[in-house]
Amino acid sequence: MTKKKNNAISPTRTENYPEWYQQVVKSAELAETSAVRGCMVIKPWGYALWENIQKFLDSKLKETGHVNAYFPLFIPKSYLEKEAEHVDGFAKECAVVTHHRLEEDSKGGLIPAGELEEPLVVRPTSETIIGETYSKWVQSYRDLPILINQWANVVRWEMRTRLFLRTTEFLWQEGHTAHETQEEALDETHKIIRLYKNFLEEYMAIPIIIGEKTENERFPGAMKTLCIEAMMQDGKALQAGTSHFLGQNFSKASNIKFQNREGKNEFAWTTSWGVSTRLIGGLIMTHADDDGMIMPPKLSPNHVVIIPHFRDELYRDKINSYCNEIRMALSKESFGDRKISVLIDSRDINVGEKSWSWIKKGIPLRIEIGPKEIENQSLFVGIRDTMQKKSILKNDFINNISKILEDIQNRMFEKANNFQKLNTKDIKNINDFNNFFNEKNSNGFAWCHFCGDSQLEKKISDDMGVTIRLLPINSSISDNDKCIFTGKKSIGRVLFARSY
Amino acid sequence: MTKKKNNAISPTRTENYPEWYQQVVKSAELAETSAVRGCMVIKPWGYALWENIQKFLDSKLKETGHVNAYFPLFIPKSYLEKEAEHVDGFAKECAVVTHHRLEEDSKGGLIPAGELEEPLVVRPTSETIIGETYSKWVQSYRDLPILINQWANVVRWEMRTRLFLRTTEFLWQEGHTAHETQEEALDETHKIIRLYKNFLEEYMAIPIIIGEKTENERFPGAMKTLCIEAMMQDGKALQAGTSHFLGQNFSKASNIKFQNREGKNEFAWTTSWGVSTRLIGGLIMTHADDDGMIMPPKLSPNHVVIIPHFRDELYRDKINSYCNEIRMALSKESFGDRKISVLIDSRDINVGEKSWSWIKKGIPLRIEIGPKEIENQSLFVGIRDTMQKKSILKNDFINNISKILEDIQNRMFEKANNFQKLNTKDIKNINDFNNFFNEKNSNGFAWCHFCGDSQLEKKISDDMGVTIRLLPINSSISDNDKCIFTGKKSIGRVLFARSY
Repeated sequence: MTKKKNNAISPTRTENYPEWYQQVVKSAELAETSAVRGCMVIKPWGYALWENIQKFLDSKLKETGHVNAYFPLFIPKSYLEKEAEHVDGFAKECAVVTHHRLEEDSKGGLIPAGELEEPLVVRPTSETIIGETYSKWVQSYRDLPILINQWANVVRWEMRTRLFLRTTEFLWQEGHTAHETQEEALDETHKIIRLYKNFLEEYMAIPIIIGEKTENERFPGAMKTLCIEAMMQDGKALQAGTSHFLGQNFSKASNIKFQNREGKNEFAWTTSWGVSTRLIGGLIMTHADDDGMIMPPKLSPNHVVIIPHFRDELYRDKINSYCNEIRMALSKESFGDRKISVLIDSRDINVGEKSWSWIKKGIPLRIEIGPKEIENQSLFVGIRDTMQKKSILKNDFINNISKILEDIQNRMFEKANNFQKLNTKDIKNINDFNNFFNEKNSNGFAWCHFCGDSQLEKKISDDMGVTIRLLPINSSISDNDKCIFTGKKSIGRVLFARSY
Repeated sequence: MTKKKNNAISPTRTENYPEWYQQVVKSAELAETSAVRGCMVIKPWGYALWENIQKFLDSKLKETGHVNAYFPLFIPKSYLEKEAEHVDGFAKECAVVTHHRLEEDSKGGLIPAGELEEPLVVRPTSETIIGETYSKWVQSYRDLPILINQWANVVRWEMRTRLFLRTTEFLWQEGHTAHETQEEALDETHKIIRLYKNFLEEYMAIPIIIGEKTENERFPGAMKTLCIEAMMQDGKALQAGTSHFLGQNFSKASNIKFQNREGKNEFAWTTSWGVSTRLIGGLIMTHADDDGMIMPPKLSPNHVVIIPHFRDELYRDKINSYCNEIRMALSKESFGDRKISVLIDSRDINVGEKSWSWIKKGIPLRIEIGPKEIENQSLFVGIRDTMQKKSILKNDFINNISKILEDIQNRMFEKANNFQKLNTKDIKNINDFNNFFNEKNSNGFAWCHFCGDSQLEKKISDDMGVTIRLLPINSSISDNDKCIFTGKKSIGRVLFARSY
């Protein structure tokens, strides 16, 4: 009989994956549901993670020539209506402001009053309100390109919500650019999706596949939607970010017109793109284990927590000063662009409980300090991703801190990358396809040739709950490549998966 | 006959102060009105300023032990109603969400549908929704204090709006803390108002007077409201930030209860405090002149702009490389915590127009480069605050850049401080008071002894449009100090002014 390992998170991933996810979010103190339907409270540990995501992504966006600005929260109903597909896509799930005050009724209760002439929608995305503004800013080709990003909250009235993955209100960045030529706008669309891929791989340690959405899955109103897809530990796909080539659809709807180099009036070519707090959901489902969250060192709010063991009161001062000495020394070191961020956890609670609280929060490194460590000038180090514990000489640890963190970061990426590879298959015929997806727990990524029939795409989705996550951006196909479902000419090898 | 100086901003401050303000905001490209009533678009130059305000204020808040988190945008109507004064204060001007989708009516137009059981208010401030959350987090004195700040957008349905000063939607930070004792909560309230004062004086170069609001001017539901007040160039006061001691009012409304050290249940003591994009309005009205904005170097999006003069095409390459050389050298230097931020403006427009565009935007230093500068290894420098122009040897400028910027920062504070002192008067009797305020353009700060009668306070406000901006926090009064209006015993020397 093997002894069952006790895990900090119950149920485990294999026992009940969706419930495991909720428990990780809860026990890592990342977020919780609020009393407002579908809206979450992002707790300090979760928000500090989001601040790091913002900081590094923002600097990558600025390095590529983008600037930030801020546009109104509210969108007049008539604006949404300007682009037909767009309003179809968002009208069904939006928060509508209809009044501008609350007034006492005859029973002394408060009721909405001051009805607005035109209802306002809380932005589900900002193409139309930003487009209206750009139409005033753009007169000539000299006013282009406009390369603006906005960090904001948005609201989509989702019926079924899950913390980070799908919430009524979420935080995101939305880029909105306007260009002189179609080519330039397409370049921007591609440049951004690559920037997202690099950010997720480098900082979040999440391996990414880039591709293009089918027409069925496109952003409402877009000509082309590029996406980054990641594999979660249950083998399902998560769409982690999108970059849309909008053609002239929105510039026509908003009248973003300019005089071109030949002196003729032309509509601008626009793009939009965004990633959201959903990234945190993806981070959890990529890296967390049955003991809780695992933070990638590049984004973890803190790199190291020091936990003093006051077994003997006589040692208290010595231990405190040893802990402080270590903190000071580590704080002078760097990892990537950041100084090492070190906490000392002096809470008056049981040391085991304390240590497990940090394991569940996923801090990369825990250092435990007792009399023995002082004697040996060593540290007792717990490494979160491997759950390894070992004694290291103090100076060795301090001198190698950057390397230790980099190893963790790389190991996390490699592990996720191997998992993705292991669960991805080239599928050559419809039987293999059915076998791959038919068992209830059998998820994963399946690449196979497809003819591009959107009715068929819909049927597979309805029958099996499997969707085309993306078409490859540059696919080289020969005449011999046939759709595995119809035998017709293939449009390329596309990626099928179940998804969030 | 003196020659009239041509100014970049028309009208000037003396000609029409409110219109001058709007023109500065516009010509500095800080913000503009949007198609959504009362909501502004914060343009990239204005938003970059806000980002710097956020960055430095956020780091001061973190240094004092505060962490960031995020709470829902929406507040159920019933939450607002929990605190009687609070709902009275905000119900009259709030955006009310009543429906969660738009649906086609019989004529094919879209109308609100999916009525909510309970209307939601877009947060005008977050005491009630955050209080609800804290009530779940706090069980024991060990869970206290909670020191949380939120950066967010809020909505107050203002009838008359002005960019930055009063807008329907604005951006702000709101701190919400909960404490074990009254004393601790009061300490926090005072600590924050001093932090605000230091931030405004050190970074924004705005001299600040700290004090306490009268009951009439308190935050709805607060026991005590502390404030920072600044004098604008028209002599009026701007409330630039507030810190509220909420006593147990909101913890009772939200049921934030904890077991104290004696094992008894007690309500927590809470505070809240905030500053907003209104600060940018205050910055403009403190420092801008008849040529436009003047940015304090510590917060200016960029410190230096380099403007190449391509008078002779032959020199183009030489001038470009000289400009780049200067930019590279300056970028290695620092001012305070920031690296020197340098732009090269190579737009293909008239040099005069280009230079004036930066004057209006208020960048601290402009450098113009032509053949003569290369020859002399010099720079032609324009200093925004003094409008002085002079030739400086390249190396002298680069080596002294930090000192040059610090001098500007100090000069801006001194100028504003002198203006405040010059327009502040100790008033000993009612006649002097009337003379001080009676002429239409006669604004300024008047300190005088006051008996504390809130009816009288209201009458002065109604008759003259002059309000008590603050009561001093620590006032030493003798029995001989009498109210200048009633002759009754004084509660202290209070500050009267007209205000924004």
